[in-house]
Amino acid sequence: MIRLSLIGIGTGNPDHVTLAAVRALNEADLILLPRKGEAKSDLVDLRRLLCRNLLDDPSRTRVVEFDLPQRDARADYLGAVDDWHESIARVWAGLMETYLPQGGRVGMLIWGDPSLYDSSLRIARRLRSCMKSSMKSPAEQAVEVDRKVELQVEIVPGITSLQVLTAEHRIPLNALAEPVQITTGRRLRERGWPGDTASVAVMLDSGGAFEALPPEGIYIWWGAYLGMDKQCLLDGWLADVAQTIIERRAALREQHGWIMDIYLLARKPL
Amino acid sequence: MIRLSLIGIGTGNPDHVTLAAVRALNEADLILLPRKGEAKSDLVDLRRLLCRNLLDDPSRTRVVEFDLPQRDARADYLGAVDDWHESIARVWAGLMETYLPQGGRVGMLIWGDPSLYDSSLRIARRLRSCMKSSMKSPAEQAVEVDRKVELQVEIVPGITSLQVLTAEHRIPLNALAEPVQITTGRRLRERGWPGDTASVAVMLDSGGAFEALPPEGIYIWWGAYLGMDKQCLLDGWLADVAQTIIERRAALREQHGWIMDIYLLARKPL
Repeated sequence: MIRLSLIGIGTGNPDHVTLAAVRALNEADLILLPRKGEAKSDLVDLRRLLCRNLLDDPSRTRVVEFDLPQRDARADYLGAVDDWHESIARVWAGLMETYLPQGGRVGMLIWGDPSLYDSSLRIARRLRSCMKSSMKSPAEQAVEVDRKVELQVEIVPGITSLQVLTAEHRIPLNALAEPVQITTGRRLRERGWPGDTASVAVMLDSGGAFEALPPEGIYIWWGAYLGMDKQCLLDGWLADVAQTIIERRAALREQHGWIMDIYLLARKPL
Repeated sequence: MIRLSLIGIGTGNPDHVTLAAVRALNEADLILLPRKGEAKSDLVDLRRLLCRNLLDDPSRTRVVEFDLPQRDARADYLGAVDDWHESIARVWAGLMETYLPQGGRVGMLIWGDPSLYDSSLRIARRLRSCMKSSMKSPAEQAVEVDRKVELQVEIVPGITSLQVLTAEHRIPLNALAEPVQITTGRRLRERGWPGDTASVAVMLDSGGAFEALPPEGIYIWWGAYLGMDKQCLLDGWLADVAQTIIERRAALREQHGWIMDIYLLARKPL
């Protein structure tokens, strides 16, 4: 039996890790660390650092790094994501079969929380069929079924960048008794301000989706590299700071080679 | 100077506390624990337990319990909340002046995360004026100003019940590339399904607000006492399980004397 833990590790501030995450890391026989290419090597470094700092007995837990398959840049976004998840699931299944042929506990360190704009749970759901289909013959499949290899998935919640954004700006996410929408930059650009909400949190924006909104009466709290040493915060009326944010974002991206940023927009005081 | 830390402690599972929360608790000179009346005494007990388990030197940190003022049940909801926050702020200010007349660090344990449907940040914003107005004479005020008593607020993010709900049901909060709205039971009842979203998380529902929706095509994941030993989970198509959830909720509330529950609704696969 394989027991897979998707462990939310927060946003890069090692103090945001929960006691449950520390325990899950230490219970793992195998930890899989994806590499996402040179530009985001900071993120792999942070995961390595967490493993180094939090594992009580590094000789017991095997940490294996692997290259994450690239996503197709084709126009059919959902189709490309679907294929990408399938290839990642195959890579995971292969690694688990290689390193834990008798089963055991696998941990994966997930930025933020596995529930919010993260694919690991969807990829994990594909694992069962991948693990079966990588068997070589019907005979082996029969043996496998006989051994009742099972997959159990466990999720350990982690602090999201949205929580660090609001904590650092000292604001709530929602206006008093009002709803809040969490959405993507792509969606904000295509559809504008969502209905029925006084505040909107925007994630996965490749840059400046807020420019699609008429800025009057909208306040923005922006943050990049949240929880990390290079964290950067800006806030103000959208009409006043939109340009500054766009320029600062471009400069930071240039300086560090990558950027992750999110923001909260509100039309009422928070 | 008073340094106030609003410390998110998660939902009752002591393992969901972050390392930053443990540190903030141990750095406090004074911890204020609100009592909310007999019915919710479990929640005070859990806070007491966290203090007992996590404080390295209980003789250094003073833990003071106080009775939370009651909220007016009058029809003007926002007005009643406003008055209520003002009375709580006065109580906090009084306790800080009594126990930390020379200033120091105050910690408050906040369920979940201080950013999500929690009032402590709004109450903290009122503290400065309360601390001044509780001074007895203009002379004392002058001395106070002279001493430059300052208030600094720090927020430590915590795991929310929403994150425990999704972790325990092994689901994401958002459908792939789709937004999610977080709203209240009151709002869902009054306005129905919010615009522009495939999934809706509902908090602060006094019971069965989902009955206001035409149930066709809506799936629900429900959870009560999330993160606690008495945690209860249910899920299914709304048309099939709505009645079961309403009955289970009433029975649990009867059994334990109080209930806290939330749920996620989706119109697309998550």
